Order: sequence, then C-alpha cells, then structure tokens
Amino acid sequence: MMHPRSVAIIGASNTRGKVGHIILQNYLDAGFDGKLYPVNIKGDKQILGIKAYKSVLGIKANIDLAVIAIPAEGVPMAMEQCGKAGVKSTIVVSGGFSEVGATDLQDRLAAIAKKYNMPTLGPNCLGVMDPRSRSDTLFLPSFKLDKPRIGGVSFAAQSGAVGSTVLDLISNEGFGLARFISYGNAAVVDEVDILHYLANDKDTKVIVFYIEGVKRGREFIEMVKRTTRVKPVIVIKGGTTPAGATAAHSHTAALAGSNEAYSAVFRQFGVVQADDISDVLHYAKVLDTQPATTGNRVAIITNGGGTGVLATDALYRNGLVLPELSKESKETLKRMMPSTVNITLPLDLVGDADDKRFSDALGVVSADPNVDALMVIALFQTPGADSRVAETLIHYGTQSPKPLVVVSIGGSYTLAHKNMIESSGVPVYDSPGSAASSLAALIRYGQYRHRVGTL
Amino acid sequence: MMHPRSVAIIGASNTRGKVGHIILQNYLDAGFDGKLYPVNIKGDKQILGIKAYKSVLGIKANIDLAVIAIPAEGVPMAMEQCGKAGVKSTIVVSGGFSEVGATDLQDRLAAIAKKYNMPTLGPNCLGVMDPRSRSDTLFLPSFKLDKPRIGGVSFAAQSGAVGSTVLDLISNEGFGLARFISYGNAAVVDEVDILHYLANDKDTKVIVFYIEGVKRGREFIEMVKRTTRVKPVIVIKGGTTPAGATAAHSHTAALAGSNEAYSAVFRQFGVVQADDISDVLHYAKVLDTQPATTGNRVAIITNGGGTGVLATDALYRNGLVLPELSKESKETLKRMMPSTVNITLPLDLVGDADDKRFSDALGVVSADPNVDALMVIALFQTPGADSRVAETLIHYGTQSPKPLVVVSIGGSYTLAHKNMIESSGVPVYDSPGSAASSLAALIRYGQYRHRVGTL
Repeated sequence: MMHPRSVAIIGASNTRGKVGHIILQNYLDAGFDGKLYPVNIKGDKQILGIKAYKSVLGIKANIDLAVIAIPAEGVPMAMEQCGKAGVKSTIVVSGGFSEVGATDLQDRLAAIAKKYNMPTLGPNCLGVMDPRSRSDTLFLPSFKLDKPRIGGVSFAAQSGAVGSTVLDLISNEGFGLARFISYGNAAVVDEVDILHYLANDKDTKVIVFYIEGVKRGREFIEMVKRTTRVKPVIVIKGGTTPAGATAAHSHTAALAGSNEAYSAVFRQFGVVQADDISDVLHYAKVLDTQPATTGNRVAIITNGGGTGVLATDALYRNGLVLPELSKESKETLKRMMPSTVNITLPLDLVGDADDKRFSDALGVVSADPNVDALMVIALFQTPGADSRVAETLIHYGTQSPKPLVVVSIGGSYTLAHKNMIESSGVPVYDSPGSAASSLAALIRYGQYRHRVGTL
Repeated sequence: MMHPRSVAIIGASNTRGKVGHIILQNYLDAGFDGKLYPVNIKGDKQILGIKAYKSVLGIKANIDLAVIAIPAEGVPMAMEQCGKAGVKSTIVVSGGFSEVGATDLQDRLAAIAKKYNMPTLGPNCLGVMDPRSRSDTLFLPSFKLDKPRIGGVSFAAQSGAVGSTVLDLISNEGFGLARFISYGNAAVVDEVDILHYLANDKDTKVIVFYIEGVKRGREFIEMVKRTTRVKPVIVIKGGTTPAGATAAHSHTAALAGSNEAYSAVFRQFGVVQADDISDVLHYAKVLDTQPATTGNRVAIITNGGGTGVLATDALYRNGLVLPELSKESKETLKRMMPSTVNITLPLDLVGDADDKRFSDALGVVSADPNVDALMVIALFQTPGADSRVAETLIHYGTQSPKPLVVVSIGGSYTLAHKNMIESSGVPVYDSPGSAASSLAALIRYGQYRHRVGTL
C-alpha cells in the first residue's frame, strides 16, 4: 500500500470533478513513475491519455495497490475482482458504509479483504500520501491543499477533515512528511495496524495520531508502549471532555472512553498529548529535529528584553527551570559583551545585537554545564538582526548536542527568516508560550525514554 | 503628541542609518502632510531636502511635537529649548537614562518637562505610531516591519521589543491599529496617563497593554476600573511567575508585584488577561469586531466532523457550553439539509457543503433562542468551500447581533480566504482552541459589563 510500483484506479474517469478523475490526475501531476492502470466499467479505451480497463481482471500484471472510488454498492464486486486478480492491497475511498448505517455492506467488504488476505484501508477515507514514492490518493482539489516536503513526520487520522487540514498546515512549516494515512471506518486495517507499521517504518521519525476512539483499545495501548520506547508518538484525541465525547460518538460512533483513563495511560507510556491542532505542529517539529535530553534547565537568550521576561514566565508555567550560568560562563561573557548587556539569564543581548554577539553568547551558553536546552528569541525587527543571525542560529541549532528552539515574532521579513531557519532543521515558534510547551514535550519524552532505558 | 500638525525632529540627519535619519525618512515615506522641521546642531542647510534648523528656537512657528533623537547628555538642553520655543509635547527616543543607572539625567529631563508643562514620552522608547495622522516615530528599518492598517485597536508597551513585534504581527492580521505607544522609562507620561488618554480616545475601541510593573499602582487600577466600564482592556503582564518577576526586575527594574494580587484585581475589574503574545492578537480581534454578549451557549457549525469534536472539547475547556438546538430549528434544518447531515450540535454539514448549505444552517442556528454565539469551522480544502462560503460567513459575521468567529485551518488557499473574511470584520482562527478561548474572553467581558451596568 505504501511506495507502490503499480496502481490501479477503479472508478477512474475522464469527467472533471469526479473523484476517480481527481485521483488519477493527482498521480499524473505528482510525477508518479510507477505503472498506472485506470479502471472504469464504462469501457473507455483511454482515461487521461492512459490505456484503460473494464476490470482489474483484464490488467494481467502485478498490481501493488488498487484505489477504489466507485459508489458503495459496487465496492464488494470490485474487491472480489481485486482478490481474484492478486492485487496486493486496496484503499476504499468511497463512503456509504457504517458511517451511514450500512454495516452489512462494510462487513461484506471486510470479509472479502480477509478471504484474499488483502490489506484494505477505509472505507470512507482519504487514503494515503507517500511523498517518497509520489503515491497520493487524496481526492481534494490540488489547488486547495499545499503539498508538504519530504521529511520524518507521519500523520494518521480517522478524520479526513483533521487529516487534510494538518497536512495543509505541515506544508507551510519547515519540516516534512513521511506518510499520511487517513483510515476512515477502519473496516480492516485499523489503528493498531497503522501504529505497528509506522513504528517499524524507517522513514518515520515522529508519529502523530488523531483519534476519537479505538476499536482494539488494549492492543493499541500495548503497541503505543512498544512504539514510544523507540520513537515519539503525539496523540491528539477528540472527545476528551464530556460534550466532546458525545460529539465524537455522533461523528464516528466512537466510544471515546474515559478521558482520565486514556490520559493516565498515555502519560504512563510516554505519549506526547496535544489538546489543540496547533500544538500538534509545535510538538512535531521539535521532536523531529532536536536531540533528546532529560534535563529541564533552559537558557533563554534574547535581543528583546520584554520578550525574555514573557519567555521566563512561559518556561515556569511549563515546569521548566531557568538556570544560573556557571561562574566561568559569566566571566567569559562579561569579557565578550558590551556593558549594556546584563550577564544573567534571560540573557538580553539588547536591541543592537548582531550575528557576532549572538554567536559569542550561543557558544558560551550552549557549552555551560548548567544548561540542558536553549530558547533563543531573535526579533528580526531590530537593526542588527538579519540573515547572518539566522545562519548563526542554524549553526548552533543543528551542531549543538543540546536542543535549541527559536522564537521569532512578526510579519513578512520575520517569516522569510523563519522559513530559512526552519527548513534547515531548527524549529521556530511565533510565541514564547508555544516554544516553552514544545521544549517541555521534548524534555518529558526524553525523561520517559531514559526511564524505560532506551536513552 | 497624537495627530500632530507640525513635527520637529531633533537629531535629524542626512546620514543613512542614524536614528534621526530613519525617523525623518519614515515621516516622508508615510506621506505625513503636516509641517516637518529637521533640527541638527551641525547646521546643515537642508536635511533630506527639507530646510533644517540649528535649534527649535530658530523655527518661529507652532510645533505640536518634537521628537528628540540625540545622545542622552544633550537631551536636557534640547528639552529646555523646546520649552522656551513653546513646543507642545516631546518624545525622547534616546536611551542612556535610568535603564543604565543615569537616574540624575532622567530626573533633569522630567523636571524640565514639568517646568514647561510639556507632556513627554520616554526616554528610551520607540515613541508613537498614529496611522490616521501618519505620525510615526519608530526608528526601525521600514523593510523589517510591516505597517498595520488603520483600525480600532490601540497598543501600549513599556518594552520596545514586545511593542514592535506585536505591531508587526497586527499588520498581518485583518484588523487595524488606532494608536501604538511605546513609553519606555516613563519619566513623565506613564501608564496611568496613557490609559486615561486611550480610555477617552474615540478612535480606540480595544486597548492592549504590555506591562511589567506600574509606578502608580493604585491610580492605574482605578483608571482600569473606569476604562473597562466602557471599552475592553487586554493586559499581557511580564513577570507573572517568580522567575519571570526576577527577569522583569533585571529588565526594567520593575517591581512586578504579587501575581496573585494583580490577577485578582484584574479579574475583579473585568480586565482581559493574556498569558502569551499570540493570545493578545486572538482576543483583540474578537473584541474589536464582534458584538458583546452575556450568554455562554456557543453553537458549532462545521464542514469537518473531527474538527467539530475538537472544537467541542475546546469550548468545554474554556467554560463554554454547547447548547441543544430548539425543536423548531431542528425541524427546519431537517427539511433543509441532506440526509447525510445529522441534525445536532456540533452541526456537521459534511465535506460537500457549499455556500447554500452554510447559509441555510447559519440562518437557522443564528436565530435560535438557545444560541448566544457561533463558532463556524470552514475548512477550505473541501470541494464545496470557496469564496462564496467566505461571503456567507462575512454576511452573518457582520449582520447577526450574535458574536460569530470562524476557524479555518490550512495553507495558502485557506490564508487567502482568511484574509478576505478577517479584513471584512469577522475574526478567523487557525485552531479551535484559540477560537474558543477568544470567545470565552468576549463573553466574560460581556458578563462583566452587564454586572457593572454598562451593557
């Protein structure tokens, strides 16, 4: 199902706007270089310029993946044909199954998948996006959704809406996607299977999961426990409040379960819990790029005093500590810094700080034994802050063995530098609060890994 | 000091990079149409093409404002000359006063201002930006800082760094600025004076204040109490934690005071408290544009089920309630909506919702007596969501007597619509959590106004 070399699209169409048209067109637009087999019962000779088939049975070639995008009532027959043709896996994007009460139809689909031992995603899902192989079954108009770059974060979601919006958000951040999996009704492949796959996927460094409820709760927890020993799992769970749980039940018939129970188990097994969609991105980018640590002493370096004060408050609120610099560091800094710089943390480099001053401060502070991690506030509105300051932050953020996050707040000039820094592997936040909560997530996860003996 | 018709710039210079050059150039770039008088002791005949003076005493005309941007030691003499010349107000952007221990120099400055009864802002500040009169004393390179549109939000900050970053952020949001005031050391004009001014300023609809500590605490609280009766005051306070308070003391020698005491007083007098810089923007835009309400029953309408679940959780976490629709509303909606739409809140219009379905739903739900406010989640990745949906949201968000906020999450296509909606006066959020906390701020403030009898 992932990195397929040959894909049949059942329901492919020459008619603009049809789901099967969008999917085939997206494969072509993405430059997919495997084999494509459009399948349409109407018997078109060609679809979008490619030889078409009436049924997968006519293809007579190895098919890694069949994407099924036809009305629900036709899906069982198409699945049977896939099974007979030896198709390796299927993704059923069609809706009209258990989510509208048609559980019988869904059961038939599941039975066929099992009979042929054919992994099947869906129904009622967006399917997968696998940027390395350029396999992409999302049937959203491509102009509405920015495409993410290739990277280490995998994202799995029951909900197509949450999935596609997060995908679109990720595309505008400086980190990249490993796999996107929207699994819908989970008739066959479910949360446990997906987590198992991602835990063993070498391209996936960070796993993000949106769930409302899980079908095999015990197995899911067991899989979470095994996974968090080796890579971070960020969970955003819908239905964590009583009203939300009712809404979740109405949405996917998920039994959201007791939030306290979930939350306690997640905490016990090192899951990074996100409450809001924005948190998911904040946590993913630091876990994807920055080294693990178990220490919670965070040094703040800033070129704007007031922002340093707010950042100190934010550290404290997130259970982190602003340390004292060592005597040696203070003496060295005193020699290096102008008299306007007060040698204490938060270290305020003041408004005329340039790359030299940032570099001097970062060199000393990142080597200080009292410091476990760094938050650098670089306000690009000030006269001395430019792309050389950004280069300096990239250097320390990628070379230092201690985690480093950047806070840069502002408009277009700032965003240009944010993009430069982040696409080089150093996370940038637009407020001290999100930077502090992200560092706290990284540190708590490091402490968990240390506790279970894998760090 | 605000909307001056004539401005003297003391320290104006033909040398690029000098503070006095940047300020004069910014006045010219902004199209300031009052009189400009460059003043420089060196005796240049012209500065940037404008007749220059050696001293304000030579100008022989009415001067509403003198901006002083010369080394600290020269400031008292310049102030004396301003006083003698009958200058109405001064802004001292120069640093080198109490913030570096030169309290004597600052006391002399204050004494001269008092002797001539000359309102003086600073020293050690960025001064003011008054977009209506195009008066702007900020000496930051203009390419680094986006300029906000004209609007109803005024922002006052001790800290230049916090001030300029928030200004830059506001410029990229769909709401506009009334006044920006960076007041630095507050030797003469202080927090109480500024709040008094903004409370009575008809262009200011929402006041935002960044403070670390205030000099006249009792008077400030009294002024806050009077102001919040008529317009919202958002305070972001640095030094709300013990570590942050220490940092604040080191930054501005502010005695941050007991956080509990501040927070309790602020709550008692209806202040909207923001913890993080991002909250300031979130709260300001809903308070600037949406009508007041005292009810906390928020209806959620969405075209993405999972996001509706997360939004319900977010409402609950912020002390808000998801109501039941009235029997009449349910019956009407049942007639209007396709069978795929489940008639309950959160109302999931499902993925193929277009402007007609949004409009039908908004018409019924916004008129429902069980509903006090609306959160509409419009995911623009879905096929039916386009600029007609945005128009529909603008219609209800500006015409309905109930507050309405929009959640739209995503990349470039989404941001284009966010900009369209927000610049028309309807706030748009990028996560359910920030939308819920902003609605909660609006509602709590409405309840306060009701309690004190001004709503």
